[in-house]
Amino acid sequence: MLQDHLPQVPGIRLASVAAGMKNWQRDDLLLIEINEGASVSATFTQNAFCAAPVVVAKEHIGSGDIRALLVNAGNANAATGARGISDARACCAAVATALNIRAEQVLPFSTGVIGEHLPLQKILEAVPVAADQLEGAGWDKAARAIMTTDTRPKIAFRTVDIAGEQIRIQGIAKGAGMIKPNMATMLAYVATDARIPQPLLDQLIGEAVGESFNRISIDGDTSTNDACVLIASGTTGPLLSDANSADYQRLKAAVVEVHIELAQAIVRDGEGASKFVTVQVRGANSSEEALKVAFAIGESPLVKTALYASDPNWGRLVMAVGKAGVEGLDTSRVNIYLDQVQVVASGGLAAGYREEDGQQVFSKPEFTITVDLGRGDFSEHIWTCDFSHEYVTINAEYRT
Amino acid sequence: MLQDHLPQVPGIRLASVAAGMKNWQRDDLLLIEINEGASVSATFTQNAFCAAPVVVAKEHIGSGDIRALLVNAGNANAATGARGISDARACCAAVATALNIRAEQVLPFSTGVIGEHLPLQKILEAVPVAADQLEGAGWDKAARAIMTTDTRPKIAFRTVDIAGEQIRIQGIAKGAGMIKPNMATMLAYVATDARIPQPLLDQLIGEAVGESFNRISIDGDTSTNDACVLIASGTTGPLLSDANSADYQRLKAAVVEVHIELAQAIVRDGEGASKFVTVQVRGANSSEEALKVAFAIGESPLVKTALYASDPNWGRLVMAVGKAGVEGLDTSRVNIYLDQVQVVASGGLAAGYREEDGQQVFSKPEFTITVDLGRGDFSEHIWTCDFSHEYVTINAEYRT
Repeated sequence: MLQDHLPQVPGIRLASVAAGMKNWQRDDLLLIEINEGASVSATFTQNAFCAAPVVVAKEHIGSGDIRALLVNAGNANAATGARGISDARACCAAVATALNIRAEQVLPFSTGVIGEHLPLQKILEAVPVAADQLEGAGWDKAARAIMTTDTRPKIAFRTVDIAGEQIRIQGIAKGAGMIKPNMATMLAYVATDARIPQPLLDQLIGEAVGESFNRISIDGDTSTNDACVLIASGTTGPLLSDANSADYQRLKAAVVEVHIELAQAIVRDGEGASKFVTVQVRGANSSEEALKVAFAIGESPLVKTALYASDPNWGRLVMAVGKAGVEGLDTSRVNIYLDQVQVVASGGLAAGYREEDGQQVFSKPEFTITVDLGRGDFSEHIWTCDFSHEYVTINAEYRT
Repeated sequence: MLQDHLPQVPGIRLASVAAGMKNWQRDDLLLIEINEGASVSATFTQNAFCAAPVVVAKEHIGSGDIRALLVNAGNANAATGARGISDARACCAAVATALNIRAEQVLPFSTGVIGEHLPLQKILEAVPVAADQLEGAGWDKAARAIMTTDTRPKIAFRTVDIAGEQIRIQGIAKGAGMIKPNMATMLAYVATDARIPQPLLDQLIGEAVGESFNRISIDGDTSTNDACVLIASGTTGPLLSDANSADYQRLKAAVVEVHIELAQAIVRDGEGASKFVTVQVRGANSSEEALKVAFAIGESPLVKTALYASDPNWGRLVMAVGKAGVEGLDTSRVNIYLDQVQVVASGGLAAGYREEDGQQVFSKPEFTITVDLGRGDFSEHIWTCDFSHEYVTINAEYRT
């Protein structure tokens, strides 16, 4: 039996069980119970074909007072029509019965194959079993129970001292990067025992996701099931209701760090990925503009195959900057750096650039590509990975 | 010596010579001479890092009265700064001297490696040689002289009878699909002997490119050098100045056909491509919306790897439709067909769908994916190809 040494978050209890969602021997159903009085915020996929559990979770989170999350791996319950919605509601009802709460207080999540109906009976049978096993420990098991194509669990933890008390922030995530809707989905659950009122928590999750999951790209595809949940159980420390207070700011920094660590873990575990690359764009006229250029680079198949080949092909970087659609870009002001090595100066090959210097950077498993647009004061960054033969192999395999 | 049996276009003379742009034994410089009084229209890449020849060609086309085109393969003269511009002007000047015209009457084009300076001296020496060899024949040699990573020349020809006279439309193109800025670029040159005044020709090239080159995608990347030129030498037939006349409409249909055939040839020759797929989107609220959905499918790496695998992974099609950003999309009205096989009905798996039927379609070298959004009367289509191991291999290779 797996030992679980991860810290607990007061107010949160977990249980992972093997519901048999697929023909595998592993935990695949996670139940998270949240104490009364906690604040819970969530963000969901922008994909119009959002899955049935996303539809139901969006409904329920609106009613407030969330007390439980149920996550299954192996089946996305997406593109499953009215029956999918009814299945998701039945899952919530089962949790409500087991925990003696209302169905509207449960958020359902699914990840796995699209277009197949949930093995509902198996979930309904497994929920009471899980409810009996709830305990404060179990974050590591939980991180494993929600995995699909992930090659490793994704966990991040921070503590921060506020008013003499130690606040914990524990997060888990899954996803090999929104890149395999077949067995896909990025899911992230972060819990803290801090006391944060709902409106501020809603703001916090938006900021944290903006700094983390919205800055990663494996291939630009977007799952039907993506979701991120932030829970503040409120059992520890003072009420943090002032967004400008030093205490809140320190908590926020730690929460953002947990989100970033999880987001980076998803990129590092990107299907077939062998490189972790930060794309930094500065000198932009706006954050939006900087991100647009960063994603044009980070999502370009040509740049990504060059990363895979460890080929410092700066012509492709220039191409990607040029195609980003920056209005009135003066290319003669553009500089590009590979870590500290300047490769492009004033829009052309830098005079002192030596191919072997660029080669050395591109051969590293982690490095930074910095683009200076030379037109403003805004700076943004994203994280991306390379595009490998293994990506094609993984994604070209028949569904099995 | 290569025999050239392609039809000639009165008013147009060509010459292809081996200028030694790279260390290869082949023609790599194409000179096209256009008769006095012809109309010439052109469209260029939207990439902000447009190459020096594109900058110069845009300038010159504005002055009207174009009399010659010069195209070199092997070097893109892109990201080459002020010297690149001056090199491109020097090329035009050499052509002007050889043909006794003004430099502003020459359009320069380059395709090949980004960021290296043109071997200008070689071009200056080769231009007079080419000028001495100009002849009406030579379209096949021309199509080969402009190739880079192309595996075969791309040529299309049509005739149309107007007022008892046979009008010719001859086109050549190069490009393995905007996908290799290293040795990249889509270039297309189409010439007809019809008499079309400049304003109508400008309109015609916009319509023809909209129906052809703007509807293809290999990987969504955009070259720094893309260009398409349409020449109407005006030596044959009546003046076609009325866009609504039946004669013009028939000529237009043939011109569009030539453009489409060239665009499709580029997709078929896409690097590593083994499938040619038409993505048709109907029931959209606008053409723009239909094209947005079509490109979301046609450019999705997940869809493209499924095409490569001959895997009718309809979950990925649904994912791509959902991520296209169609405002207020009612997914329950979405239907999807693989050729004639309905796979998605009302947003979910079609009741009668059998995996082997979808499999059979996806195993074909050419087929159509049709998405009906069920919300309007607009319909559009694009052409795309699959994403293969060979694509990664080709684009991950070191620049050599």
